Amino acid sequence: MRGERSRMKDRGLLIVFSGPSGVGKGTVRKEIFEASRHDFEYSISMTTRKKRPGEMEGVDYFFRTREEFEEMIKNGQMLEYAEYVGNYYGTPLKYINQKLNEGKDVFLEIEVQGASQVKEKVPDGVFIFLIPPDLDELRERIVGRGTDSSGVIEERMRVAQEEIEMMSLYDYAVVNDEVAFAAVRVKDIIAGEHFRVDRVIGRYLKMIREYNQ
Amino acid sequence: MRGERSRMKDRGLLIVFSGPSGVGKGTVRKEIFEASRHDFEYSISMTTRKKRPGEMEGVDYFFRTREEFEEMIKNGQMLEYAEYVGNYYGTPLKYINQKLNEGKDVFLEIEVQGASQVKEKVPDGVFIFLIPPDLDELRERIVGRGTDSSGVIEERMRVAQEEIEMMSLYDYAVVNDEVAFAAVRVKDIIAGEHFRVDRVIGRYLKMIREYNQ
Repeated sequence: MRGERSRMKDRGLLIVFSGPSGVGKGTVRKEIFEASRHDFEYSISMTTRKKRPGEMEGVDYFFRTREEFEEMIKNGQMLEYAEYVGNYYGTPLKYINQKLNEGKDVFLEIEVQGASQVKEKVPDGVFIFLIPPDLDELRERIVGRGTDSSGVIEERMRVAQEEIEMMSLYDYAVVNDEVAFAAVRVKDIIAGEHFRVDRVIGRYLKMIREYNQ
Repeated sequence: MRGERSRMKDRGLLIVFSGPSGVGKGTVRKEIFEASRHDFEYSISMTTRKKRPGEMEGVDYFFRTREEFEEMIKNGQMLEYAEYVGNYYGTPLKYINQKLNEGKDVFLEIEVQGASQVKEKVPDGVFIFLIPPDLDELRERIVGRGTDSSGVIEERMRVAQEEIEMMSLYDYAVVNDEVAFAAVRVKDIIAGEHFRVDRVIGRYLKMIREYNQ
């Protein structure tokens, strides 16, 4: 009986990691994947924004032109996409479905607009919101990055506040006070989610039916 | 601002750990509390059943007479209680409320009947169900304990199956294949639960109000 159960492969978890621009999603995500053992696959996003210094094609993002991106939207090849401060960001569908069906967990790091679309399509995903310790600190981070004009900074702060108010659509909120702490919190959340009753109850009701046969 | 937030003390989590009789709740609970660091308080249950070899008053249970137990029920001093195979099991209310109000997490290890009562009174508790790898193994454990007559064993198996069907009332189900693994799973669940949005969202909406003042 035990052998049979271990052959049953549950569908993987779709983990959606999001939060306001500038909160440090990319840094925490890198810490999660690099600092220790993990059992999930990272889904690389696609974007039309310019590469920043140090970013690499196919590692940080797939960088595409506006035309290429819009072609994929038209062909229904995106799980989600969003336009944010003039650029598209999105998640190609094919890779994700393949990994989930293999029973692997897939980790998406995406913008808040896109996360709302995924919530509609995959309500049983695990939605994790990364939040700044406070808004003054978020502002300092965006300014310190040195990539945005002052108009864009104000716009980002306005959007960030709206996004924090959307936190209620998520399952979890993790504060990014220290990158290493935030990464551990996210890992704990994912570990615990595997044991949610609605994900495993079918397996146990089957066990009872078999015992009584 | 950061100092102010750290002074805000959230109410602790009520963690309800239950499962069929014989599944190994006590062993896993001991592993959780003894094997490594933990931040929660254990609420010792009260029972009218006889002490088993090795069990200690005030450590494993508070052992009370039937009359004493019924007096506490009458006085509304129990969060929950259940009668199970001829004995009362229950949780005194006072200690729990005190610890939760101090912001500490409280860990209850209780019978399934009692857990259902707690679910009604404290719906935002964290309900974790410990489940045997399979029912044949559960039967072996109960037989191996050597404390029950064959009639009681059959009754326990019948009750266990009913209880597993009640799993849908719980938030999480953890299989007790290896005590050490089960303990880690329970700890991961508790760690992750602290970040559930409905537990923390109020704090963040307050942050936005303060930023805009």
